[in-house]
Parts: sequence; structure tokens; C-alpha cells
Amino acid sequence: MRPAFAAAMLATAGFVLSAGVTAAVKPETAIHYRQGVYHAIAWNFAPMNAMVRGKQPWDQADFARRAARVAFYSQQLLEGFPPGSDAGAKTDAKPAIWQNTADFKAKMQAFQDASADLAKAAAGSDVEASKQAFAKTAEACKSCHEKYRAED
Amino acid sequence: MRPAFAAAMLATAGFVLSAGVTAAVKPETAIHYRQGVYHAIAWNFAPMNAMVRGKQPWDQADFARRAARVAFYSQQLLEGFPPGSDAGAKTDAKPAIWQNTADFKAKMQAFQDASADLAKAAAGSDVEASKQAFAKTAEACKSCHEKYRAED
Repeated sequence: MRPAFAAAMLATAGFVLSAGVTAAVKPETAIHYRQGVYHAIAWNFAPMNAMVRGKQPWDQADFARRAARVAFYSQQLLEGFPPGSDAGAKTDAKPAIWQNTADFKAKMQAFQDASADLAKAAAGSDVEASKQAFAKTAEACKSCHEKYRAED
Repeated sequence: MRPAFAAAMLATAGFVLSAGVTAAVKPETAIHYRQGVYHAIAWNFAPMNAMVRGKQPWDQADFARRAARVAFYSQQLLEGFPPGSDAGAKTDAKPAIWQNTADFKAKMQAFQDASADLAKAAAGSDVEASKQAFAKTAEACKSCHEKYRAED
């Protein structure tokens, strides 16, 4: 397919970039992106939490499927915090993120590691191990939110 | 870890469900979820589009990485359209989605298939094949948006 044709279709598909755009991303685009990934994490984390708390019947296969998704999403967040994206749309991200980049990255890494462990545990059949790995992942969430997320 | 302890941590992690909640999801939660996944798709699709259009240098590895993400995300959308989520928050999803469920699902399947093919093509080294698969995926986007997405 010729690029011009592809471009025309993309325009109507609604994903097209402005003409002449470069790799630079608008702060609001990054903000909406990272909020989207957090929404997707919460979407999956919520029923896992309900299972852990006994509010929903335990379903190891569903728990594992959601844990694998969370592990995937955990890898997608960091690029949603480029310099300059501390403002430009409504955001709960504190400016401290860009003042303590190394620490923020370390906390993100801890979340990635914990959710990878969670996905691994969930893929097995040990319910208690799944619950413990879930709690550790929630701790990693909390550790970062306490320092870098503004209260709603 | 004891469930009570895990629950306490989750509460502060901000992911906790309301007490007594069941598997039922609020319409606004589903709307925000699916919009989040679409944002994540657009985040990855935009630089791929820029590469296809020659607005950004071609990078097969980056193109492949993003194509794999889009293929993953394509699998996550359908559950974001539960019955009753045609309203409850700002949404561009037309009510026709819930009146033509079979057709909507078929279009979603077409997007899943096209993006799987795109990820496969992108994992190779054939730039033209990658571009063609990208155009087919964009066609699948367009086909669904034309019918089921309200104009901004």
C-alpha cells in the first residue's frame, strides 16, 4: 500500500499525527496516556483485590490472567512521564517525580519486579502465594503513590 | 500475608473496592477503562504512523515493540463495553454498539486479527510488509470508528 493512501486512511481512523510532527509528545498526550495505563491496571487489580478479600469467589485462572496484564502494564508506565509532563492537563503526578527521577524510577522498577513475581505466582496453583505476591505488589503501588501522587 | 492486612494496604494503595462490592462494574469505570486502553493504543500507533509516513526515521525494532503492544491492547477492549456503559461518563461510544453487538464484536475481532498480523509482520525485517500490515490495521480501526464512534 502506498504511504499516501495509508496516510489518508489514518486521518479518518483518527490516529493521525499533525503534519510535520516529530517525536516530541505534547504533555497532555503523555498525561492521558499514563492515566490510561493506570486505569487499565486498576481495572484488573480491582477484581483481584476482591478475590483476595473474599468479596468475589477465587478464580485462579482469572487471577492469573489479570496478574499477567498488570505485569505488562507495569512496563508501560515510565515512558508516560517525560520531562515537562508535570502540567498540561489535570494530573495527580507531583512535580517531585521530575526532581527525584532516580528514586521514582527505582519505585517503578520495584512495581515491575513485584508484578512480575505476582504474575509468576498467579500462574501456579498456590492461592496463599498468589495472595502474598498480590500484597507485595500493592505495597509497591502504595510506596510510590505516597510520595509521588497527589491526594484526590 | 493475612487478607485483613492485605486489605488494609490496598485501601491506602488506592485500588480498593467499596466494601461489599460484587463483580458488577460502574458504567463510568468501564468507560474510563476502555478510554484508557484506546489512549494507550494511540500512544503507540502515533509514532508508528509517523514512521510509515516518513515523518520519523524508520526503526524496525521500535515499530515491532509498539506493534506487539497494540496487539496486546486489542485483546483488552471488548470487556470495556459491558451492557449499560453507553452512558455514565463522557463517551464517544454510540448506543449502536449495544444494539448491534454481533457486528461490533466482529469489527473488534477484525482489529484483533489485523493487529496480530501487524505484530507478526513487524517482528520481521520487511519494511513494506510492516507498512502494509499497519495500513490494514488502520482500516480496521476506521471501519469500527465510522460506525460506532461519535465525532469529536
